[in-house]
Amino acid sequence: MQSAAEERDLLVISAPEHDASAYHLSGFLAPDPVILARVSGRKYLAVSALEYGRAKRQARVDELVSFEELGLTSLARELGEGGSALGAAAAALLEKLGASSVAVPPNLGVVHADELRRRGVELEPDGGLFASLRRQKTEEEISHIEKAQRDTEAACARAVEILCEAGVADDGTLLWRGETLTSDTLRSEMEIELLHHGSSSGGTTIVAGGSQSADPHERGTGPLRAGEPVVLDIFPKDQSSGYYADMTRTFFKGEPAQELRRMYETVLAAQEEALGMIRAGINGREVHAKVSEVLHEAGYRTMLHDRREGEPLTEGFFHGTGHGVGLEIHESPSMGTADQELLPGDVVSVEPGLYDPRLGGVRIEDLVVVTDDGCRNLTRFPKRLEDAILP
Amino acid sequence: MQSAAEERDLLVISAPEHDASAYHLSGFLAPDPVILARVSGRKYLAVSALEYGRAKRQARVDELVSFEELGLTSLARELGEGGSALGAAAAALLEKLGASSVAVPPNLGVVHADELRRRGVELEPDGGLFASLRRQKTEEEISHIEKAQRDTEAACARAVEILCEAGVADDGTLLWRGETLTSDTLRSEMEIELLHHGSSSGGTTIVAGGSQSADPHERGTGPLRAGEPVVLDIFPKDQSSGYYADMTRTFFKGEPAQELRRMYETVLAAQEEALGMIRAGINGREVHAKVSEVLHEAGYRTMLHDRREGEPLTEGFFHGTGHGVGLEIHESPSMGTADQELLPGDVVSVEPGLYDPRLGGVRIEDLVVVTDDGCRNLTRFPKRLEDAILP
Repeated sequence: MQSAAEERDLLVISAPEHDASAYHLSGFLAPDPVILARVSGRKYLAVSALEYGRAKRQARVDELVSFEELGLTSLARELGEGGSALGAAAAALLEKLGASSVAVPPNLGVVHADELRRRGVELEPDGGLFASLRRQKTEEEISHIEKAQRDTEAACARAVEILCEAGVADDGTLLWRGETLTSDTLRSEMEIELLHHGSSSGGTTIVAGGSQSADPHERGTGPLRAGEPVVLDIFPKDQSSGYYADMTRTFFKGEPAQELRRMYETVLAAQEEALGMIRAGINGREVHAKVSEVLHEAGYRTMLHDRREGEPLTEGFFHGTGHGVGLEIHESPSMGTADQELLPGDVVSVEPGLYDPRLGGVRIEDLVVVTDDGCRNLTRFPKRLEDAILP
Repeated sequence: MQSAAEERDLLVISAPEHDASAYHLSGFLAPDPVILARVSGRKYLAVSALEYGRAKRQARVDELVSFEELGLTSLARELGEGGSALGAAAAALLEKLGASSVAVPPNLGVVHADELRRRGVELEPDGGLFASLRRQKTEEEISHIEKAQRDTEAACARAVEILCEAGVADDGTLLWRGETLTSDTLRSEMEIELLHHGSSSGGTTIVAGGSQSADPHERGTGPLRAGEPVVLDIFPKDQSSGYYADMTRTFFKGEPAQELRRMYETVLAAQEEALGMIRAGINGREVHAKVSEVLHEAGYRTMLHDRREGEPLTEGFFHGTGHGVGLEIHESPSMGTADQELLPGDVVSVEPGLYDPRLGGVRIEDLVVVTDDGCRNLTRFPKRLEDAILP
């Protein structure tokens, strides 16, 4: 028996390389937009002449159609620059298939949507449906994520190796191979390690030192210093499968200040608490509430306890506890303030953090698969405080 | 005096890391969606608490607003999963600013669009406007693209070095450092070179050998062979500026067959013809027509001369002649069948190709800046046939 999500007619118009739903549904990677329709359980993919041959070999769909067959060129001529020839071609395809109402992703472009509606197609934007199609991972998908996770850890090990090799100048700046060790150097070296393993983060790895690490989204730049936190948040994509992994570790070259040690131990305790709770059936909101409570009780601010309307919190814990990871780095489910029950096969990050604009930040992130009776941690990299303090 | 494009009120809701318009208008890179409004020439950026501090330092806008100020949390609670709290928050911002009608990008998500319209905001999807805002590059932008272009050429030089170093096994397979030389190895080595220069292609570089090169979008995999075309299409992004470059070269390890030589010389002649025509005021369609004519007269098929309705062409020349390059790898203007006059400051690729499913493909691509009296070629890498045949 198929679930409702498996049965519903749906339509996607987007470039599979930039849209996980289009890729997941078609099994076809392409840089330019394609039309993917699923009607009565059968999948139809329409592509340009340029993609036709490759799609024939690679796409996992029931029927391949060319844009030409749908009259795209004349539609483009007819509609001009302001219209959506793709929307019109998709409407033609749906009409041929006898589908007058389809679910679409919330990010379907407004010009496509307007064109489809003008041609009588009823659209139901349904983010939940598309998220659900990709959410619970198969064993094969989990093995792709695990592969990316091993690559992530190899990159982290490379960073640790460099931080250990580094010397410390009189002013506390780290030195490596005769030069100042910067976030940028460390990021490059990690990226090279990722590439050797067939993964890539496209240079997005966070290597944030000192006060930069107090901002969870700061990518980090410039010299690294002894005693200050170095937050490494590594989330590469395995190039052959397209699946992501995600891990964060916080390191100190030499002894950190007492307050940083305390932040570290508190974040780790909060994470352990979360890892102990996660299982199919629990609500992500409960996990997030528990993490917030542990941090709050240790005396730190959290969004749940210290939020004031209209005033962003910039100290303490002010992001979610975790998010799904798969063909997108951020996907369903989330573990934050939203009401989302975890399901078996969900792959989620677990990443509490504490941030202090003066001292910097500490974040520790593992990646787990939700199971019926708990979770399986895909992360093997050490995370005790003694592992984080590097000689 | 400001142009009309500079004056029109507009709205973008998207993640600047994945949306060039949001980044270009805000000067702020972030992985999650932001709201960017321009009303009466003033720019407003709304971000989450998580991004607020960094946006304060980095964004180039007139006013920074937090999602909290716009009531995002309570809107999200009120609208539930199906609605768009961001759309509602954007409507609130626009109301405060007294704007009831805005231009939006064609890819504005349908849920945001529906929410905005439900709240009385009139939307005018206008791809041309947003494309035009980013189209003609400033000197500073061109210098970013040139930097990425130098990195691209360094990566290409690395590939040439490896192809020259490679030996040839009895069956024609290339050998390098004791192992079979594959597309994958070459791609990795080029990526490492890119990273050393501060650019990255995230593993998307095309390294297509033999019959794989007959498909312009095939990324390429597996062993490379002597005498067969190796198409390298390299389009990395400079990591600090976010700007792309784009270059393609086709190489042969050892002597290619006579027909491949002829394809190469023909493609090069067609490209030279195009480079000689490009200047502000010419129509991209004319350039494409001329390229097609050169190829057609040499006896090859083209979309302009040999297209049959409903039957994709998979041999000869079946893609456009070029496209704009900037914060996106494909942006305005295009040089193909569309009616697009070139403007000074446009940065466009010029990339004719010929493809033969049996023999493989040849493509040669340079990147140029359109000027009032011609074009300035940003590409320095050699491209004569004798440069393409490697010892």
